[in-house]
Order: sequence, then C-alpha cells, then structure tokens
Amino acid sequence: MRREYLPAGNPRPELLPDKPYSAGLSIDEIRESLGLSRIIKLASNENPLGPSPAALRAIAETSAEAHRYPRPGNPRLRQALAGHFGLPEENLVIGNGSDEIIDLLIRLKVRPGRDHVLACRPCFSVYGLQSRLAEAEFRQVDLHEDFSFPGAAFAAAADENTALAFVTSPNNPSGLSPSADELLRLAAGLPPNCLLVVDEAYMDFAEPLKMYEMLRRQPSLPNMAVMRTFSKFYGLAGLRLGFAALPPELAKAFLSARLPFSVNVMAETAGLAALTDREFLEKTLAVVRQGRAFLSQGLRDLGFQVWPSQANFVMARPPDHGPEAEEIFELLLKKGLIIRHLKSFGLNSHLRISVGLPEENQVLLAALAEIFNIQ
Amino acid sequence: MRREYLPAGNPRPELLPDKPYSAGLSIDEIRESLGLSRIIKLASNENPLGPSPAALRAIAETSAEAHRYPRPGNPRLRQALAGHFGLPEENLVIGNGSDEIIDLLIRLKVRPGRDHVLACRPCFSVYGLQSRLAEAEFRQVDLHEDFSFPGAAFAAAADENTALAFVTSPNNPSGLSPSADELLRLAAGLPPNCLLVVDEAYMDFAEPLKMYEMLRRQPSLPNMAVMRTFSKFYGLAGLRLGFAALPPELAKAFLSARLPFSVNVMAETAGLAALTDREFLEKTLAVVRQGRAFLSQGLRDLGFQVWPSQANFVMARPPDHGPEAEEIFELLLKKGLIIRHLKSFGLNSHLRISVGLPEENQVLLAALAEIFNIQ
Repeated sequence: MRREYLPAGNPRPELLPDKPYSAGLSIDEIRESLGLSRIIKLASNENPLGPSPAALRAIAETSAEAHRYPRPGNPRLRQALAGHFGLPEENLVIGNGSDEIIDLLIRLKVRPGRDHVLACRPCFSVYGLQSRLAEAEFRQVDLHEDFSFPGAAFAAAADENTALAFVTSPNNPSGLSPSADELLRLAAGLPPNCLLVVDEAYMDFAEPLKMYEMLRRQPSLPNMAVMRTFSKFYGLAGLRLGFAALPPELAKAFLSARLPFSVNVMAETAGLAALTDREFLEKTLAVVRQGRAFLSQGLRDLGFQVWPSQANFVMARPPDHGPEAEEIFELLLKKGLIIRHLKSFGLNSHLRISVGLPEENQVLLAALAEIFNIQ
Repeated sequence: MRREYLPAGNPRPELLPDKPYSAGLSIDEIRESLGLSRIIKLASNENPLGPSPAALRAIAETSAEAHRYPRPGNPRLRQALAGHFGLPEENLVIGNGSDEIIDLLIRLKVRPGRDHVLACRPCFSVYGLQSRLAEAEFRQVDLHEDFSFPGAAFAAAADENTALAFVTSPNNPSGLSPSADELLRLAAGLPPNCLLVVDEAYMDFAEPLKMYEMLRRQPSLPNMAVMRTFSKFYGLAGLRLGFAALPPELAKAFLSARLPFSVNVMAETAGLAALTDREFLEKTLAVVRQGRAFLSQGLRDLGFQVWPSQANFVMARPPDHGPEAEEIFELLLKKGLIIRHLKSFGLNSHLRISVGLPEENQVLLAALAEIFNIQ
C-alpha cells in the first residue's frame, strides 16, 4: 500500500540536492589524512595574508561581549558601508555570508511552480542549490566557449517568469568579468519582472575596477542588486559576512524577513574594522595582483592554458602531454598542496588555483614543474 | 490596469510578517538614547557571567585563522556533542543558532499549501515567522490559563497534515516546563506524519533536569527532534550556535540542504571549549538557580504574581495597585534597567526578567521597590 503521508522522521525528498555543495578540502583534513606537517591551501580563494590585523584587534576587544545578542539588522555596519561606498543606507542589507543573501533573495522573489532563476553554466553552485530548496526552477545559459559572458543569449533566456538572474562578476571559476557597460545593457533589456543580481564576491581584485564594478551604480538601477563579501578581500571567510545593495523595497523586506541574529557579533565587529584597514587592503591588492600575474605566466610557461582573471584565483587547463587535471590535483595533494579540480563545476579538464603568498605560488609552480619533469 | 507581474525591485508581499521579530533592547541603544553610563540588561536571557573563559581563550587562539572557511557540517563539534551527551553522531546537526535549525526543519518538512506547523500560544515568535516565510500555515493551541502545557488539546490539534509540532520546554516566556513523561505521552499519541520538535533552549537550567529533559531520550523516539542552544547556558549568544538531535534520515537531509558555511569558525571553536568548561558551567547554574529563587521571592514580596520557572528568567505580573506592566518597563528603562514587556507575546500585563548577577537582581528589586514607593 502506498503511504499517503511523509513519515515524521523523513524530509521532503524533492528538495534535496542531487549533488550537495562541494567545498575545497580543508588544511585539517589533509594534514590528518596524509600526516603532512606543511600544507599550502590554494583551494578556496581565501586571503593569503590572513585576516586584517585591525579585524583581529576588534575581535580581541569585543570577545568579552560574545554572550550578548547582536543588534537585529546590523545598523552600525549598514551605516559604515553606506558611508564607505557612497550608497543609500536604505539599500543595504547584511547577511551571514553572501550565501544567506542568495538564499533569501530567492525566497523573497520566486513564486514556486511559476517563476524561475536564471544563471550561467558553469557557475557558483549555491544559486542552484538554494533554488532547488525553494522549489524554484533553475535555468542555465552556457558561457561562450572561451568562458566569456553570453550577454545576448542570457538576455534572450529571460522571460516574464524570470524572477532573478544571477551574474557572477568576476566569474567563478573562470575569473573573467563582463564589463560594466555590458551589464548595463543587459539590465536595460530585461523584462520588468526580472531582478539582475550581480555577485561581486571577487570584484575587489578587478583592474581597472571602474571598468567592471556595478556596486556604486546600483542605486540608479531599479532592477539591479549587487552582492559583495568580506570572505575574500577582507580576509574574513571564517566569520561569515556578506552584504548587498538592493532596490529599497526589497531591502526593507529582506530586513523584516531575515532571521534577526543571523550575523554574529564577531563578523560585524571585524567587518567594521577591516573595511577601513587601508594598509592591509592595499597589501592584499598588491599580493593578489602581482601573484596572479606571476602564477598565470608560470603556468603558461609550463604549457597550461590560463584564462585572464580579474579575481584572486586563476583557472588553468593542463597541456595535453602529461597528467590530466584530476591526476595533477592528486599529485599536488600528496605534496601538501591543495588546489581545486573543477569536476564539481562540470569542468573535468580544468583546475582553479587561488593566488597565495609569493613563496606559496613559487612552491606550487616548482611542484608542477616536478610533476611535468621540467628542471 | 492590474499588473500581472511582480516588479523586479519588489518582494512577494505574502511572505512578509505582519509583525517582524521583536528583540530585547540592546545596551548600546539605551546608552545612546538615554545618555546613561551604567546599563543593566535583563531582557534577552543571556548568561550574566559573560562568555565562558575557555571559549574566550579559544577565540583568541583561533582568530588568526578567521580568513579560512569553516569545514562544512562542523564535524568536530558534532563529534564532541555526540560524546558529551551520549548521542549517535548521525543524529546531530549544528546551526547558526537554533533559529537556522527551526527555519530549515520547516523547509524540509512542510509541503506549502498542504501541511501546517503547530505550536502553543504564546510562544517564541520565530516558529511563526519562519512558517510564514515557508508558506506554511501556522496553527496555535492556547496554553492553559495558568500557562501550563495543554497536552490533550495540543495532541488533539495535530492531524495528518501537521508536519511539525513545536513545544518549548522550558517555555518562553512563562518558564514552565512540561514533564518528560508528558512529552513522551504526547509523542506516542501523535499521527505518524507529525514530528514533535522540543525546543530545549533553556533546559540546562531545569531542576531536577532528569524530570524534564528529552535530549538524551531522542534517539529512541522516531518522531522526535530536540533542539539546544549555546546562547544561554554557554554564554555565546553573540556567536550564534545551536544544535539538534534529529531522526537520522532528517539529519542527513539537513546536512545536505544547509548552507555549507552557515556556522562561523568562532562559534564552533568557542562552542567546543565552552562545552567542557565545567567550572564556568557550574558557576552559571548556581548563579541562575539562586538568582531565580531570589528574584521570584523578591517580586512576590513586592506583590507581583510570579510563575515557577525552570529557565534563566522569570515571568511576573505586577500587582493591581500601582503602575501597569508597560509603565514599569518604561520607568525601569529610565533608570538604566532593561527588562522585557511581553506585549510582543500578546501579554500586555506581563513582564519577563532575565536572572542577572546577584547585585543586578538586587538593583532591579530596589528599583521596583522605589517605583512602588516601598522603603
């Protein structure tokens, strides 16, 4: 007999991912499993310099208040971000990482069984996972073969039931960024129901910034949202802090629908401090931009194809002679070097390498040279 | 002309709360608005001793790693909790506060437009807010007039579409706790589709614990989930850390559906340390139990009705002579004492006072004596 009910201890199977989120391996995992003492992690696009020193001081100063609930909505950080980026405070929302913002935007916009979410393929997996959980259809438009943004095809795919369209700029995992002009054209051509969400998680590393960034342009665009994160440039991935500029009506709804205390006090305090830690931010920019050029050139010298990156990582495809991407990933792992094989993005032949400290980049290139038997 | 579409910048209005979450006032807010130097906050059931010292040491030691992502699913903490409470690891899940667990349980269990969520009235508002956001009907059963748990009426209200039934034990805001026997009878009488979720946020303070707690009994009950939090007993409200024991199938689904990094590294590290900080936990228990008795007696001496509490707060109703609850709340605020007027729980005549340090409890009672002109 078919059961008509969902048993108490069971979840709704239709919401569960076929493929759950696939994270970069952690240093602890590798240390434990391989018994290696030195591990270099270039897998999760973290800041190689560590957290901002100003953020560390702020954490030390406020940890004694860790028994107090945060203030709902994080008014101090909203105000600081408004001042820092020259944005209206009413547009700004804070999230427990950008992840929470992605999730709540989908929930607030998509009518299940009616609307859908649009993104590129490949793209950051959280857009699709949270769409599934919200029972929103998830549609994808293939990137061009060179991984550039397929502007015309993307616009053509949006219809009167596209509630949200996610564009990651710079893109993950390619590092390529559509220009601001391209995104402005896209926004102008979308149907009036479609909110264009530009995920600028890696925008801080783009050069020249003005050519690409949308955040400061958001207030003048009624159908655009722009997300940023403290996980990369600001070195606070472990604390979970993201923010977004949204159309004001949506920001208001976000604030009233968000779990009131989803952003922890350490994240808020550290974020406030990191935001104006100029010395650290300038050093980060220099290390990432120089390291990106160094890594890209070094990989090309080894015969890799490397895509031009505006982010703090590079995507690379190994030469046809020699081991394949997955094998290279495994060989590096045995040497204590963690990078990302892009299988979970559907790119079996590609690797993604986060920019590390100068010495870490050198160690990586030397290990690759060894793998390819190049002296 | 009626618009057929939802404009890009607008949220779905049907998901938004009529009454957003109402938080206790923060110390900063009151200090800023009243210009007072000393503020005593007895409004949010925080630990009056502050965070666990072991947790503070753990925060200091790990803050330098704040630039690294947490490990998805928080395996170290799951393992530690399993050992500490004698529970199977496969039943345990960690959340960004219990709030995230409540939200995700509703999403994973409730089929919108078909199932509903059951709770008592009054109760913690997050059950209703997250039901609304998930488009789940939210039904409530009135507590008995003496605020005790209406076991029979609650069981009778559950039907073949009750996906989740929340019981807070000890209850917020009354402090009363149904006995474990009562909850076992309830669990045995529910329809097979209904998961009983016992929210034990305040259970650590119950006395005698064995008479009330369900957490250690959860593994033998296929239709029960039990939630706990690090916000109260462990003194980590600001870091956001909750956990739950779920039926294993549901725990597995929770882990694959939860945002992978929703629990920050500080929360996990501090939680691991606080869990075994025996000296701090024993001191907390002593301060709360003695303070609870002291406050309850002191309030009764002033003519208040006080409900017997198993939590770290007491609910009280002022005597008929003298100022009403809201006025008392306002008068205390002017003296720098923050408590909760229970208007947001629909209890206009009631106050909730968190147990503070011995001196804070004395200051509160003295201030109330002054308000009632008792020397």
